[in-house]
Amino acid sequence: MGKILLKNAEVLGSDGNVNVADIAVDGPNIVQVGTISADWHADKVIDCTNMLAVPGFVNTHTHAAMTLFRSYADDMQLMDWLQNKIWPAEGNLVAEDVYWGTLLSIAEMIKSGTTTFSDMYFHMPEVARAVAESGIRAVLARGMAGIAPNGEQALLESEDFFNQYHNSADGRITVMLGPHAPYTCPPEYLKRVVALAQRLGCEIHIHLAETIGEVEECKEKYGKSPIALMKELGVLDCGVLAAHCVHVSSADIEIMKEANVRVAHNPGSNMKLGSGIAPVPEMLAAGLCVGLGTDGAASNNNLDMLEEVRLAAMLHKVHALNPLLIPAKTAVSMATSYGAQALGLGTVTGTIAPGFKADITLFNMHAPHWYPRNDRLSLLAYSANSGDVHTVLVNGEILLENKRLTTIDEERVIYEANKRGLGLIAK
Amino acid sequence: MGKILLKNAEVLGSDGNVNVADIAVDGPNIVQVGTISADWHADKVIDCTNMLAVPGFVNTHTHAAMTLFRSYADDMQLMDWLQNKIWPAEGNLVAEDVYWGTLLSIAEMIKSGTTTFSDMYFHMPEVARAVAESGIRAVLARGMAGIAPNGEQALLESEDFFNQYHNSADGRITVMLGPHAPYTCPPEYLKRVVALAQRLGCEIHIHLAETIGEVEECKEKYGKSPIALMKELGVLDCGVLAAHCVHVSSADIEIMKEANVRVAHNPGSNMKLGSGIAPVPEMLAAGLCVGLGTDGAASNNNLDMLEEVRLAAMLHKVHALNPLLIPAKTAVSMATSYGAQALGLGTVTGTIAPGFKADITLFNMHAPHWYPRNDRLSLLAYSANSGDVHTVLVNGEILLENKRLTTIDEERVIYEANKRGLGLIAK
Repeated sequence: MGKILLKNAEVLGSDGNVNVADIAVDGPNIVQVGTISADWHADKVIDCTNMLAVPGFVNTHTHAAMTLFRSYADDMQLMDWLQNKIWPAEGNLVAEDVYWGTLLSIAEMIKSGTTTFSDMYFHMPEVARAVAESGIRAVLARGMAGIAPNGEQALLESEDFFNQYHNSADGRITVMLGPHAPYTCPPEYLKRVVALAQRLGCEIHIHLAETIGEVEECKEKYGKSPIALMKELGVLDCGVLAAHCVHVSSADIEIMKEANVRVAHNPGSNMKLGSGIAPVPEMLAAGLCVGLGTDGAASNNNLDMLEEVRLAAMLHKVHALNPLLIPAKTAVSMATSYGAQALGLGTVTGTIAPGFKADITLFNMHAPHWYPRNDRLSLLAYSANSGDVHTVLVNGEILLENKRLTTIDEERVIYEANKRGLGLIAK
Repeated sequence: MGKILLKNAEVLGSDGNVNVADIAVDGPNIVQVGTISADWHADKVIDCTNMLAVPGFVNTHTHAAMTLFRSYADDMQLMDWLQNKIWPAEGNLVAEDVYWGTLLSIAEMIKSGTTTFSDMYFHMPEVARAVAESGIRAVLARGMAGIAPNGEQALLESEDFFNQYHNSADGRITVMLGPHAPYTCPPEYLKRVVALAQRLGCEIHIHLAETIGEVEECKEKYGKSPIALMKELGVLDCGVLAAHCVHVSSADIEIMKEANVRVAHNPGSNMKLGSGIAPVPEMLAAGLCVGLGTDGAASNNNLDMLEEVRLAAMLHKVHALNPLLIPAKTAVSMATSYGAQALGLGTVTGTIAPGFKADITLFNMHAPHWYPRNDRLSLLAYSANSGDVHTVLVNGEILLENKRLTTIDEERVIYEANKRGLGLIAK
């Protein structure tokens, strides 16, 4: 790390406008954007001609190590897939597998312009190791299922994990608690999670209202929706990042607004698994913070946030037969500043401006699909692909330079993750 | 052109399976796939280790030169967009603009793995010139609107264009008639198109049932759906490629099946414009041939067929809440062999097998998002992006080699198309 000057970039500002500017990075921070003072000297200058500088994407919901199961089982019913394919394969996972699977996912994320991800999985110290080594930013949660044999252990591990890793890796790692979902965490268990969250001063990352079946079961069992149940149990008082929220009512949205629940919308996963279409325009209209996520690569099947931007922009238009919904600017904000807010990092990342960390993705715009150059934001949202990602900085460090990873031994990661992934399903 | 050996490729076969094989190309033709006879000697050998060889994508519906209006006007109501943005800008187009806009689109298509496209636009000799020079394969139709002042002239031009260009450019160009749509071509006009089609022995490419409004207007005016009206007017007897077919009933689908109407499904355009979701699973179940198309880049906003594959695979799952619909194999077939059939080229392209033309796209699979290597077809459909396209052959000629265009001066095309595109909207 040192002083880096991004020279002559086309910079996407928080107002959605793109202007040619220089970006001065000192250590982990963006210190100037625009015309840089003549007395500011960089250790390294990157020529950004024809480059669009975008805040690094924030992937608000994934299970990174599930890249190990990518393309293993597709086009199946959710429960058939989970019970007969994913859970048995996950049963074979050891800590080292999670490390390599997470590194594979980080390699993919950096190469597709993501600089922060929010993860829920297990063997989380291995995930933290991969994050620390690779230089990416992450919000990590040890997944907990109250109905699982290791439900008690997961609570203990979560507390240890928080104490050991929260604000670690130069502040790049923060920690949340990760109760999996209302249908895997009974009320008594969730109350203990809430108590732990309050004791630690820690927020919660949870799956809510992903499928119709889950919502119906909750109503039958507890007489209320998952959102209402979470309110009753005090979960929403802890500060909540809620993944999916596909099947939520207007009443649910009101509750969510009141409690400032932040939503991780995963259009790709919801589409591929046939879960449904979340009422994102309604949630945004109600003033909710909605970020974007890829979900795990076993269900998506990639970690490509630009794809989620495009799906978010297009899915809601066709669902409501209204082409005005989720315009390009909104979709890109969901993947950047809104996502950062959703993770409690709204003043840290997701915006290119002085005072923010230097988490920046440069897209190479010199390719046929980026012309004519009418509207760069529209080109990004509707025409670009992640193969256009050229250079990526996280926390002021260059993690991808001209498409090459600088902190990850890509060949070794591919070799290890491929071998382990194929091995896990052969067992 | 000469004898080319694609050595050690992972070849996607027509059964959806992927097997390691060599592909021998002699002149425009694939002559062997598998273990190549020892006495067969190539002029050029391409090492295809880690490459997935896929039939080049067939884009069944586009307006290629509309790349000139890419990112000019987005997130608008269809009629507002057409009347206040696109039509005025198109009014400024001259022949030379269409040439450069089409070349920009061909550059983009080749670089994203498309080897055949079906176009409907005007100044078609310029389109044919771009196709002939670039080496791509195309099915071209001069768009005709009976209600336009140049409706008569369009009929004459269509006939001339057919006579001059059908089966031209070593057979890479075939020609259809292109009556725009029932709402722009009154019955009397369509009858004349039918008569011309019969006289020439020429098929028809037309927009049908794209929006609800159009279908309702048709029913009000003629007492029947656009599909039923086309049957009555004899249009369907000519052999029809029908773009969109979003709002078609079961009765319409029966009529279409009877007349062997082939459908160009454009999920990206239909989503972005908020047109609706075509009943593709129902059409496929009825035995209809359904290909994929991008529509023009002004509405899509790119010509990325892999994106359409993914959208086709995911959109219908979420619409019906059924993850079994349009599995990966079907979606990829829609972009390849089904698309070729839809264009009347089912024995020419869309399949990698001896006897077919060598229209082949090589995807570089050596990247994190292509691992683990469980299921290559699933990786292509759900995880790849068009930035992975490495090499493309059309008619036995290498048009893209290691991401570089061989027949197109990319810098000049970008320069001309950008200048002209920006100029057209400034007028």
